[in-house]
Amino acid sequence: MTGDDDGAPDRLRRQLAFLIEIDRLKQIRRQSLIADGSRRENDAEHSWHLATFATVLIEYAPPGIDLGRVLRMLLVHDLVEIDAGDTYCYDVTAVATQADRERAAADRIFGLLPPDQRVDLRALWEEFDGRETPDARFAAALDRVQPVLLNYHTQGRAWRERNVSRSQVIERNGHIATGAPALWAHIKRLIDDATRRGWLVDA
Amino acid sequence: MTGDDDGAPDRLRRQLAFLIEIDRLKQIRRQSLIADGSRRENDAEHSWHLATFATVLIEYAPPGIDLGRVLRMLLVHDLVEIDAGDTYCYDVTAVATQADRERAAADRIFGLLPPDQRVDLRALWEEFDGRETPDARFAAALDRVQPVLLNYHTQGRAWRERNVSRSQVIERNGHIATGAPALWAHIKRLIDDATRRGWLVDA
Repeated sequence: MTGDDDGAPDRLRRQLAFLIEIDRLKQIRRQSLIADGSRRENDAEHSWHLATFATVLIEYAPPGIDLGRVLRMLLVHDLVEIDAGDTYCYDVTAVATQADRERAAADRIFGLLPPDQRVDLRALWEEFDGRETPDARFAAALDRVQPVLLNYHTQGRAWRERNVSRSQVIERNGHIATGAPALWAHIKRLIDDATRRGWLVDA
Repeated sequence: MTGDDDGAPDRLRRQLAFLIEIDRLKQIRRQSLIADGSRRENDAEHSWHLATFATVLIEYAPPGIDLGRVLRMLLVHDLVEIDAGDTYCYDVTAVATQADRERAAADRIFGLLPPDQRVDLRALWEEFDGRETPDARFAAALDRVQPVLLNYHTQGRAWRERNVSRSQVIERNGHIATGAPALWAHIKRLIDDATRRGWLVDA
């Protein structure tokens, strides 16, 4: 492919290079198992699943949410993990360096795009990460709801492997109460039930 | 979880049952390899990738496209394959029974949702499948652009394994010209280049 004078092919070439580069998200393994327990989930599958959660559960969002923005936010929210890896939320050492690793990753990965899209998609990721706007809070709540559901449906295996406690899960997931209050009541029931069943340490 | 009189928990229970059931999309293998050639792609990853394609390539859509609808369409466009399986587009026998198998799958899978959402999401899938509206044409175009790109980036391995010819790929993908005309010029160059390199049969 050679460039030409109107610049359009170069723009498309950058966009396609970005779209091929982010294919690597399919190789980033998370801690959660998929629902049948057969293997760990990857970030690309997780991102699809979350976006579908948003589509189906939008009625539980606080008023004023823009579903289209939430979807775009969820599609790109984990791209930084291509370089920075998945940081398990109950791994204290990894969490300490997470912000720096993810910022460097954002520079490189969003930097593959044409300037306007680099700015737009990076801003969406930063908004997600900052969890201050209603859209970001709802997206971040779903990013917690989905792993709890998968953990519950796999008898808490990822929790049990790391001796995760009820209070850790409550602390980590409590912000669901802000981003999607109506879902939190249900998730809290699942956490309590998982504790009764011995899938979470009762502490 | 027990129901209560306002019906809300039952509605949420149906929504979550759907969201857990569709987790099986992560186990449906496609013919395309992921970009590093290490394994076949699954439908959940593919759906995420396509939705991100739509986000980045929306400027190449004909006027009047609603990106939010396109995203929701792409998120659910392959759910029927949970029951019907991935039908390889160059497998004539499988293609002959595809429509019936996918309709039965849509009845069951969208049928897990509360009635209003069952109707909405099934209609989106049917719109995608019918490829008659601008939104559906753009979504369907991306559903062809992405596998051609992945095939090209893996030296045409999925094509070579089945002796796919240039004319088959042109026939199958020609509708990109309608759904996203500006992308077709580029995809056609890739197809021609793949033919020169011997990754597609020159016929």
